Amino acid sequence: MNCKKILILGGDKRIVSLANNFNRDGFDVVTYGFSEDIDFDGGIVRAANLKDALSGRDVVISGLPVTVDDVTLHTPLYEDKIYLYDVLKLMTKEQLFVGGRITPKVKNLCGIYNISVTDYFEREELTVANAVPTAEGAIELAMNLLPVTVWGSKSLVLGFGRIGKILSSRLNALGAETYVEARKFSDLAWIDAYGYTGIPLNNLKGSLPQFDVIYNTVPHEILTDDMLKLVRRDCLIIDLASAPGGVDIEKAARYGIKVVHALSLPGKVAPETAGEIIKDTILNIFADMGV
Amino acid sequence: MNCKKILILGGDKRIVSLANNFNRDGFDVVTYGFSEDIDFDGGIVRAANLKDALSGRDVVISGLPVTVDDVTLHTPLYEDKIYLYDVLKLMTKEQLFVGGRITPKVKNLCGIYNISVTDYFEREELTVANAVPTAEGAIELAMNLLPVTVWGSKSLVLGFGRIGKILSSRLNALGAETYVEARKFSDLAWIDAYGYTGIPLNNLKGSLPQFDVIYNTVPHEILTDDMLKLVRRDCLIIDLASAPGGVDIEKAARYGIKVVHALSLPGKVAPETAGEIIKDTILNIFADMGV
Amino acid sequence: MNCKKILILGGDKRIVSLANNFNRDGFDVVTYGFSEDIDFDGGIVRAANLKDALSGRDVVISGLPVTVDDVTLHTPLYEDKIYLYDVLKLMTKEQLFVGGRITPKVKNLCGIYNISVTDYFEREELTVANAVPTAEGAIELAMNLLPVTVWGSKSLVLGFGRIGKILSSRLNALGAETYVEARKFSDLAWIDAYGYTGIPLNNLKGSLPQFDVIYNTVPHEILTDDMLKLVRRDCLIIDLASAPGGVDIEKAARYGIKVVHALSLPGKVAPETAGEIIKDTILNIFADMGV
Amino acid sequence: MNCKKILILGGDKRIVSLANNFNRDGFDVVTYGFSEDIDFDGGIVRAANLKDALSGRDVVISGLPVTVDDVTLHTPLYEDKIYLYDVLKLMTKEQLFVGGRITPKVKNLCGIYNISVTDYFEREELTVANAVPTAEGAIELAMNLLPVTVWGSKSLVLGFGRIGKILSSRLNALGAETYVEARKFSDLAWIDAYGYTGIPLNNLKGSLPQFDVIYNTVPHEILTDDMLKLVRRDCLIIDLASAPGGVDIEKAARYGIKVVHALSLPGKVAPETAGEIIKDTILNIFADMGV
Repeated sequence: MNCKKILILGGDKRIVSLANNFNRDGFDVVTYGFSEDIDFDGGIVRAANLKDALSGRDVVISGLPVTVDDVTLHTPLYEDKIYLYDVLKLMTKEQLFVGGRITPKVKNLCGIYNISVTDYFEREELTVANAVPTAEGAIELAMNLLPVTVWGSKSLVLGFGRIGKILSSRLNALGAETYVEARKFSDLAWIDAYGYTGIPLNNLKGSLPQFDVIYNTVPHEILTDDMLKLVRRDCLIIDLASAPGGVDIEKAARYGIKVVHALSLPGKVAPETAGEIIKDTILNIFADMGV
Repeated sequence: MNCKKILILGGDKRIVSLANNFNRDGFDVVTYGFSEDIDFDGGIVRAANLKDALSGRDVVISGLPVTVDDVTLHTPLYEDKIYLYDVLKLMTKEQLFVGGRITPKVKNLCGIYNISVTDYFEREELTVANAVPTAEGAIELAMNLLPVTVWGSKSLVLGFGRIGKILSSRLNALGAETYVEARKFSDLAWIDAYGYTGIPLNNLKGSLPQFDVIYNTVPHEILTDDMLKLVRRDCLIIDLASAPGGVDIEKAARYGIKVVHALSLPGKVAPETAGEIIKDTILNIFADMGV
Repeated sequence: MNCKKILILGGDKRIVSLANNFNRDGFDVVTYGFSEDIDFDGGIVRAANLKDALSGRDVVISGLPVTVDDVTLHTPLYEDKIYLYDVLKLMTKEQLFVGGRITPKVKNLCGIYNISVTDYFEREELTVANAVPTAEGAIELAMNLLPVTVWGSKSLVLGFGRIGKILSSRLNALGAETYVEARKFSDLAWIDAYGYTGIPLNNLKGSLPQFDVIYNTVPHEILTDDMLKLVRRDCLIIDLASAPGGVDIEKAARYGIKVVHALSLPGKVAPETAGEIIKDTILNIFADMGV
Repeated sequence: MNCKKILILGGDKRIVSLANNFNRDGFDVVTYGFSEDIDFDGGIVRAANLKDALSGRDVVISGLPVTVDDVTLHTPLYEDKIYLYDVLKLMTKEQLFVGGRITPKVKNLCGIYNISVTDYFEREELTVANAVPTAEGAIELAMNLLPVTVWGSKSLVLGFGRIGKILSSRLNALGAETYVEARKFSDLAWIDAYGYTGIPLNNLKGSLPQFDVIYNTVPHEILTDDMLKLVRRDCLIIDLASAPGGVDIEKAARYGIKVVHALSLPGKVAPETAGEIIKDTILNIFADMGV
């Protein structure tokens, strides 16, 4: 199998950037599922119809997420519909289907049609790389919404997973007084070694009144009612945990505290970087497959 | 002279924050020249009229700028007018008048009324400190307007004065590929020592096509027509030089390049930090006067 | 159980610092197994004999390693011998025995005497925290042995485990051109996100001739003969992998390359920090036991 | 004048490295005034005698310092003597004489012989660039002599000139708690902006007992007797001010405090980097002369 021939089959701005990225790297790129006014770089070919699009391609790359209804592909930049069924029917078993957030139903369907399928959104390196635009998006929000600079601000990061790690490194680099809540002793040792101030969950409560801004990265509720009571009213809470988030916005509102729930930042704040991250991940998938 | 009794006489959000800051530090603070709906912290007294406001105060602090018409104080958060003439007439020579961007005419008027006057905006430490919110404001703009992250972006800073120094340190800390244009060999040595890449003015032209974003801090035109020609169309130029700026917006537009002229960022992006910077500077003025 | 009464039972400089640290934190500290000329801080009591030493103590803390012969405690700062057998015989089952690198034989013996035993050297947070003095020790070696500054030096770190992570953050902060070899795509994504340059193992060979210094943190041979052939003769290799190390010193010598095998750096370069790390870890052990 | 033909005329290791550097950059390099066992890179020619050495050269570069006796060149790696008089007599007025720390007497002599002369050691960019190896040398000393890591150490830098600026940036990057003493309000604003803690000279005294290490960069006595009294006995003082230094070693000894006077660190800790800095500076001299 020679992986040079790629079909980009619908998607948002990130996927447009993905197409341009593959093209720039010398891949043979065909697109389908984008409205006419979407500008691709020179060298990229628009297919006239789905059959032409799929013909002769080694890899078919669809959007992020692949689908929202389990029936059609997610093609926000296209006025028509592309049915998954139609795509899989036309594919051959030599072709690879690649997408992000592939649902069990789609996986199942691929199985039925005997099509190899792989999900780039499940790759650890993509999640790590996405922490960079997520952290920047969070900082942009703080810069925009706070009446003080990030420099010198008393900043608390809840959680020391991927986003917590990158976010605290950036806050510290910008001169924020960076505090990070973590439960594991080893995480607290890392926090110390990187020069931030660790706060064990036990000590969190007493420390809360000092903060100008709190970044939550934990997908469950850490800031319980008796915690929120201690947060300053002029403190901004930026919740970065994926839906439904980790901070109860209504509870916080009762104490007059503003919460911003920031979702899917990479695609919003840096679609080109997001596209490049997806490309790098797909190249890794190729490498792992030995193609 | 005992400097504990302060009158805050009009001004914008920064000056409101300044009043709160002095109050928090234990100073006796009276305000005048703000509309009723402006919230000051507890302990701050609103004077009923100008005469009461000035009575018994050691220092009279006005806004930034002090005036825009040389006749009235600049009081953007007040519905009425306060005439400079009225203020100076009511002041005694034991009182100190402090303001920002004091015009020659105002200085002159103070001389006539025998009032000591000092300008905090002329202090070097304020200009240095203001480089921090300015740099953050510039980065916020870049994060907002660029389709890529600041991390990994090819970033050029024109000039290595106060803003250039702080801005390049922040860009580098965020993981941008940080290039700095400077003319002096010693500045290029500093740039090197701090880990950025120096570009002598001579070599600037050839380096231009690579940049995703250019931050100008130089108050005259460096990017001449034959330079702009080489800048990529998708490059963002953020001009931080004070009015009229250092980048010709129309010339750039002819090449399809977007220029944002960002002025007075500290007051806009971080009024509280700006207020604190002014307070620190005024405390230094007191220290220098031995009061 | 009340953990305030501690016996420090022999050990090197780190353990002396450990005793002082516990004393400073308000613990009741008795020592035994140190020569008379070892200076402890005021408030620390020297026991006259082993029986007195153990009497009434809640916790018995011995050195690192606990023993090198499985018969006596490791007491490098003491002229006499302390037999493990004697210690365990005198202990009660209410007392806790704490040590570093406890051998299976010692664990077994504790079981026979029904003594609770725990090893601080097995704790993840200690290993993480020790990466800091290890990284500094490696940098001190490089500063000492290289004819160039660390700043600007082309530096390669082999491996991105605990030491690799901290070491690369320090090298980067000092202005070295920091390259990190890693195998996992997710590690390469972290390396990228932190601003270093990742080198997949596949690409290592071709990159080798450029380096001024190579830091190995991997406990097996990565630099095979055909790799070493490509390393410059004036390149310094610092091997940080625990014995027997990961670089073949003799093979390297055949190519004229200098290898320094740096072992147990924390205790050598920063015994007080090492002592503090052990104290923090033992406090965590107490916390985990709920004492 | 064509500057490609260079004579390197005696000097220490830095100057050997300087010769290799020019050679690597493609200059035509001849050497004289070095013992036979000094290894130069291939392509560099050793002259048989002084006359041959000087013949046809555009630039004559001597050591650092040029001379210590005003009679002979400073040639520490040479067994014979080279008389300044002999050199100048053989030079023509088309040739340029370049050296470091040129004495008034030598300058005078050049005038008499009508030889153009320039001192690279007077160039600001060299002084700035040398701050990098100086700061590293100071940190290496601290790493070597302190029983704690630089990370987490309470570190005070006296003075915020060139060395103070670079040193505090490195200490901060390594995770030291970095305090910097300065007198000017604007310097304190810079210190703040870069994220270190500023200490105005007025407040220095009270802050002294907390420090693990003090780096002095000020060439006069700041740590007076009543200051030293407050420094902890286990505090290490590293004096980086040029001879006679800024810390009174005997006074400090009376209080049991260790002082290390570290002189001429660039040549000692990083001769190759030092040689490269000199080369860059000489290239700047050529550029300024338009050659």
